[in-house]
Amino acid sequence: MPFNEAQTGLRAVLGDRLSRSKSDLEQHGRSETHFPLTPPEAVAYPESTAEVAQIVKACAAAHCPVVGWGAGTSLEGHGLAVQGGVAVDFSRMDKVLEVRPEDMVAVVQPGVTREALNHELRATGLFFPVDPGANATLGGMAGTRASGTTAVRYGTMAENVLALEVVLASGEVIRTGSGARKASNGYDLTRLMVGSEGTLGLITELTLKLQGQPEATAAATCAFEKIGDAVDCVIATIQAGLPMARIEFVDGPTVEAVNAYSGADFPASPHLLVEFHGSETSVAADAQFFGELVNDMNGHSFRWAERAEDRTALWHMRHHAYWAILASRKGSTAIVTDMCVPISRLADAVEATATDIEAAGLEGPILGHVGDGNFHAILLIDKDNPQHWQKAKHIADTMAERALAFGGTITGEHGVGMGKLHMMEAEHGAAWGLMAELKAALDPLDILNPGKVVRPRDTTGNTPFPV
Amino acid sequence: MPFNEAQTGLRAVLGDRLSRSKSDLEQHGRSETHFPLTPPEAVAYPESTAEVAQIVKACAAAHCPVVGWGAGTSLEGHGLAVQGGVAVDFSRMDKVLEVRPEDMVAVVQPGVTREALNHELRATGLFFPVDPGANATLGGMAGTRASGTTAVRYGTMAENVLALEVVLASGEVIRTGSGARKASNGYDLTRLMVGSEGTLGLITELTLKLQGQPEATAAATCAFEKIGDAVDCVIATIQAGLPMARIEFVDGPTVEAVNAYSGADFPASPHLLVEFHGSETSVAADAQFFGELVNDMNGHSFRWAERAEDRTALWHMRHHAYWAILASRKGSTAIVTDMCVPISRLADAVEATATDIEAAGLEGPILGHVGDGNFHAILLIDKDNPQHWQKAKHIADTMAERALAFGGTITGEHGVGMGKLHMMEAEHGAAWGLMAELKAALDPLDILNPGKVVRPRDTTGNTPFPV
Repeated sequence: MPFNEAQTGLRAVLGDRLSRSKSDLEQHGRSETHFPLTPPEAVAYPESTAEVAQIVKACAAAHCPVVGWGAGTSLEGHGLAVQGGVAVDFSRMDKVLEVRPEDMVAVVQPGVTREALNHELRATGLFFPVDPGANATLGGMAGTRASGTTAVRYGTMAENVLALEVVLASGEVIRTGSGARKASNGYDLTRLMVGSEGTLGLITELTLKLQGQPEATAAATCAFEKIGDAVDCVIATIQAGLPMARIEFVDGPTVEAVNAYSGADFPASPHLLVEFHGSETSVAADAQFFGELVNDMNGHSFRWAERAEDRTALWHMRHHAYWAILASRKGSTAIVTDMCVPISRLADAVEATATDIEAAGLEGPILGHVGDGNFHAILLIDKDNPQHWQKAKHIADTMAERALAFGGTITGEHGVGMGKLHMMEAEHGAAWGLMAELKAALDPLDILNPGKVVRPRDTTGNTPFPV
Repeated sequence: MPFNEAQTGLRAVLGDRLSRSKSDLEQHGRSETHFPLTPPEAVAYPESTAEVAQIVKACAAAHCPVVGWGAGTSLEGHGLAVQGGVAVDFSRMDKVLEVRPEDMVAVVQPGVTREALNHELRATGLFFPVDPGANATLGGMAGTRASGTTAVRYGTMAENVLALEVVLASGEVIRTGSGARKASNGYDLTRLMVGSEGTLGLITELTLKLQGQPEATAAATCAFEKIGDAVDCVIATIQAGLPMARIEFVDGPTVEAVNAYSGADFPASPHLLVEFHGSETSVAADAQFFGELVNDMNGHSFRWAERAEDRTALWHMRHHAYWAILASRKGSTAIVTDMCVPISRLADAVEATATDIEAAGLEGPILGHVGDGNFHAILLIDKDNPQHWQKAKHIADTMAERALAFGGTITGEHGVGMGKLHMMEAEHGAAWGLMAELKAALDPLDILNPGKVVRPRDTTGNTPFPV
């Protein structure tokens, strides 16, 4: 057994910080969604890059899988050790190493969460903008190319990571990128690592772009009778060049769930939630212009969240929509899936998905980051009803197929993990083979999160596409 | 000879569109800067992706180098066939294939220039923002990860290419990315190809992000006595979150050259050139706020370019600064180099470079994209003075070393090409080795622009680091 061979070496590096306790293994075998418990064989708690390198070397010598672990908040089971091996938990590498306000840059260890970083930045007038909702670690967010509500303005992790320190499959430590804002200095290894889901290297340090806290912020909600009108309003807003910081779509069922959960009283129809960042003057001008576009597109029930606490409540509500939706149907679990299409196809995609969900007799509120053409369906199912599972899986696959038919992608931000691997060939064709060649070149022993991103090479009998 | 072996196959594909005329070879062996004439053995003019794939297959069978050619405007000799072989000139693949205004996307062939695309987009209210100055092809701009004056607002080619069609070294055609604005669907092959300088594949189609023409534009120039004050003004502007569309720095000698060339009358001191895009109201507010920051930082001679024609003249002047500088010293040629540092180190970097140039007894105006920490030195030398060459080369190397010492990169936008290859190991260390592994995996025969980006594998006696 590879792990057994690696164990002595790992123990020498980590001592008590190599855990095999049942609770530790189970905690690192769980996901936030529906994937079955998949515990690793051990959990390592390194405290430095040097230790991570030693862990990888020990595992490489034994051909033992190494799987990075952040906060465990991913939605597609990225961190599950489907071929066993060691979970490398970065919770002890949680230091903000440096903040350089003049350069608007922070250097952090991978275990720092986005909320912890923003807490540390409060006195500087700066913030880190990428906001996937969950309080994920920044290492995990880079590994999965996270985005979320603010990507429409500030970009995803691909646009906000300037540089990385990475431990490769050999245990060698490399640095990618630099402190400069841009570069044309060879292959973009930073962007190759961001979104590689721990299959090409383990991120041990990140240099992140920060943003200035806007002088003024304005947020609003507005309702539409038709999804198409809401989407047309967004298209008009983008084309007008209005710099939205966030623009979110929620459908009628989501609004009902949120009303019930938060005691709010929004009309039970599709809504847009929007936020502008800028100066007092520019935000007021942007907001007024946006209000006119809403009127043009038959929007109504326009409400401004004037005070900071109203805005916090608004985005808290949005971020907790998942829990509100889960609570709306007692005892149910959820298959959460996302897709991303060119925005001209978004209304069609949302409507077709809603039709599929209804036809299947399921409940499945839809919400998402409409400025990016990205939305989520939260498919509610009875845990113990195999028909529900089957129907929900079928809807998720149909969504992914529709995303491709519409010129989009099977996942805008949730990642491949265990839930989308079986769709990768349909999306990428021959390019999926190229990904496998890259993986083979960088990780010839297939020890880094094996079974993810590329076609699994394992012959251990694990199903390549777990359900 | 590999080319001779490939020739019959190439002729079968291309007929007359395989040229071996002296003028064609010389034209594709020249660079805009100081590199020696390096003609390929033939020039291919494909008209379709299928033909590009056949060219690569024919060359692969004969181990013959294949080097992409756009408009020949690169500054580091990227397109020079240092190991011979075939230049693939994309000038006949110059169609805008599709514009989707609702998605703010254009699909183009690689030979379309950025000016041709923007000309075609004029009626749509959209534009493609990346502007390196030269009228480069979009394929070349992607290959070299071009940026320029607007990157501070709209990003570089890395942020503006959504999807690619690429012919790999095997002749296989892949598609990377999609029409969606973001994705977390496996390795970011698009960003791996962007900036790879034709060494990993030949780009045969690009899907590009477009921007809405701003409702209003304001541009201004202002002077400073100290470079540090100008840079501090930029830092304050960025931290305040003012959305600059461009912010350019030119030093005193550049202003003198431009005055002489264009008949302008700017004071001969360091200047900032700035442009804001937005609504009438937001632009006015941004401009006023910027004016206050300029005053705070001891700026003076503030001038607004109110009319569109004044703005055109202003940016025309900036884009022709290179020619103005060349004209300022008759009979001279230029070694043009760039570096990029964290903005907090920019003033130091510019001042140290100016000191080096003066100490060497050379002239070398400095200008650049100050919002990105990126600047250029245009080192003027007598063509026939070997001492000049040596001194200029030494300054360029010192700049690159300083960029690294300051936490930046040896090149922000000019690329590696022939001029920076010898500095790659100093910048990337072990990561340069990783780049070579990627290259070997994707191009095992080393036929795609061999001798560039990674450590040359050739044993033909060509010097690995040509001067």
